[in-house]
Amino acid sequence: MDAIQLHEVLNGKYRIIPTIEITEENLKLLYTPGVADVAKLCAENPEKTFIYTRRKHTIAVLSDGSTVLGLGNIGPYGALPVMEGKAVLFKQFGDLDAFPICIDTQDVEQIINIVKVLEPSFGGINLEDISAPRCFEVLERLNNEMNIPVFHDDQQGTAVVVIAGLLNALKLAEKKIDEVKIVVNGIGAAGYNIVKLLIEIGAKHIVPCDINGIINRKTALHKYHLEVSELTGNLNNSGNLKDAIIDADVFIGVSKGGILKGSDIRKMSKKPIIFALANPVPEIFPDEAYEDGAFIVATGRSDFPNQVNNLLAFPGIMKVAVEKQVKITKEMLIRAAEILSNVIEPKKECILPKATDRRVHDELYYGLLQFVNSII
Amino acid sequence: MDAIQLHEVLNGKYRIIPTIEITEENLKLLYTPGVADVAKLCAENPEKTFIYTRRKHTIAVLSDGSTVLGLGNIGPYGALPVMEGKAVLFKQFGDLDAFPICIDTQDVEQIINIVKVLEPSFGGINLEDISAPRCFEVLERLNNEMNIPVFHDDQQGTAVVVIAGLLNALKLAEKKIDEVKIVVNGIGAAGYNIVKLLIEIGAKHIVPCDINGIINRKTALHKYHLEVSELTGNLNNSGNLKDAIIDADVFIGVSKGGILKGSDIRKMSKKPIIFALANPVPEIFPDEAYEDGAFIVATGRSDFPNQVNNLLAFPGIMKVAVEKQVKITKEMLIRAAEILSNVIEPKKECILPKATDRRVHDELYYGLLQFVNSII
Repeated sequence: MDAIQLHEVLNGKYRIIPTIEITEENLKLLYTPGVADVAKLCAENPEKTFIYTRRKHTIAVLSDGSTVLGLGNIGPYGALPVMEGKAVLFKQFGDLDAFPICIDTQDVEQIINIVKVLEPSFGGINLEDISAPRCFEVLERLNNEMNIPVFHDDQQGTAVVVIAGLLNALKLAEKKIDEVKIVVNGIGAAGYNIVKLLIEIGAKHIVPCDINGIINRKTALHKYHLEVSELTGNLNNSGNLKDAIIDADVFIGVSKGGILKGSDIRKMSKKPIIFALANPVPEIFPDEAYEDGAFIVATGRSDFPNQVNNLLAFPGIMKVAVEKQVKITKEMLIRAAEILSNVIEPKKECILPKATDRRVHDELYYGLLQFVNSII
Repeated sequence: MDAIQLHEVLNGKYRIIPTIEITEENLKLLYTPGVADVAKLCAENPEKTFIYTRRKHTIAVLSDGSTVLGLGNIGPYGALPVMEGKAVLFKQFGDLDAFPICIDTQDVEQIINIVKVLEPSFGGINLEDISAPRCFEVLERLNNEMNIPVFHDDQQGTAVVVIAGLLNALKLAEKKIDEVKIVVNGIGAAGYNIVKLLIEIGAKHIVPCDINGIINRKTALHKYHLEVSELTGNLNNSGNLKDAIIDADVFIGVSKGGILKGSDIRKMSKKPIIFALANPVPEIFPDEAYEDGAFIVATGRSDFPNQVNNLLAFPGIMKVAVEKQVKITKEMLIRAAEILSNVIEPKKECILPKATDRRVHDELYYGLLQFVNSII
């Protein structure tokens, strides 16, 4: 059975099921007149909705369809089957009741406004497949202006899993984060957050690149590019990816298939670490990279070893944030990456745990819960 | 166990459950990369979301919390437990996956905008507990501007059940709809629609009253009052409820507890029919009304005979509208009322069927489906 056939048979990947069968008797408690007592409590103190309704365990998986998978801006109807899939992943691995919401607008102000207005129904918001640089403002504003946690998996989830894999790869290569040169190619949703987390864990030599080569004050396409360039000390550096890659220890590509060549890898430092995460065609295929001396190669694909799969991170992070009702901070993201990297004994072809392993999600959840409990 | 305790134990009246367990193998079909094929189909033709996602069976139960039960404007957090209750009623009696959405705005334009933008996620919208006269514009605009059916239960559902009960009450009193004088007291969400459906089924002598007595060109509080006054030929009539009630055959109150006295009933025509639907305190209690000569009394309460309960109507109407993707017309509403009235052999203390009887909902569904199939 192919994906289309399976989707037709399922006719939706979720159902909304009552927790109790309604009878003549309990109807008076579950609905009018009895529910009025509950309504009054919730109106007086909105936090009571966390006790008397499903709100605390309910999140929205919300997209405007502006950059869906590798398909680009296909709009909200195209996004819907993807958000449904994401929603059931949240349930199975994070025990969250996730509801897919695809909205028919791509205006930043309108997106922000709508998500804010939806707050009373949800315990948290997972943004999904909203294109950069719009997604940066959306996430930042919502995090500031809402009382419930907001997460953008394409930004934060990917960054966490990359950092987790990188920590293990560096361990195997016996290199230190503050000594390695790291090229991050593609400063979109994921790249921007990867750079920020890299800085946070102590990386000192980062070169952010995008379509016009090294991002400096001239090549920056928007203020988030400029921010990254400044944070990494590249405002006055120039050159293309071929220049940036010389003597690099790590290449992290969240960019475009096929843009890295074997000859580029030969210009890198000893034991080069390659994250070629473009999907479905990576920046360089593992076979080619290994042929030209790569020490470790990770991709976004499930048919090669070392898959960087967001599924490792988003259920556990959101479960903790929603349950504890805390904003998702950089510190939490780094702790999540550390937990994920420590779950396994890393090997060159296994720098990350398997995403469908339930135990990994439990480890992340309990580890992160402990961390959050220690700081709030 | 009281309502508060039951709500605490349940911790939410619904769960969102995946229709399939995710495994390493089917993950590639349910999510990336396989879901991309499904996403493309849905992007090209949004109607495909009805096949490949749950959209066609999913509705929003949406409120701004501006008039919740008898509690007034308690806001979206107070509305949430009520909307959850409504959602599970939709599931149990209409087999629809209903999701509660409480929005943190009461601005008409913003409500309209938000509901429209949510269209890609839903097969239908049930509006709930939005105060009049705002709700009239919201429903009308959404019905015109959206492609999926929109229903406002407080307007349309109540009207359908009142008409159903009235048809049976008139049968028992051996009176004809075009001959009776009907006073409708309280021209809010329900009253406005009751008047409109009464006209549609042939009532010729309707007197709409509100807080300032008979609604005429001077006492009309807004354009919807004016419309009702004009439609019923009362633009130049005046008087208070006590005047209007003289020689009336039918009193329909969707207004305020205790405003009808036994002395008023004695001024009515022979075999007076009383719908005293204010909740929890009716316009007049059945005992008192019967004492003063009422022929049939209906209320909104479950502890008296002849309960006018919206639950009779909304699941079946929405199920048909959403399944067939048709707008909800006056013709459909009247057909629904006729079906509900015909489900039972009416008696004076049983003019309406029992709302928790599953068979009633089946009858309404199949009857209305047949009607819709015959006209589309």
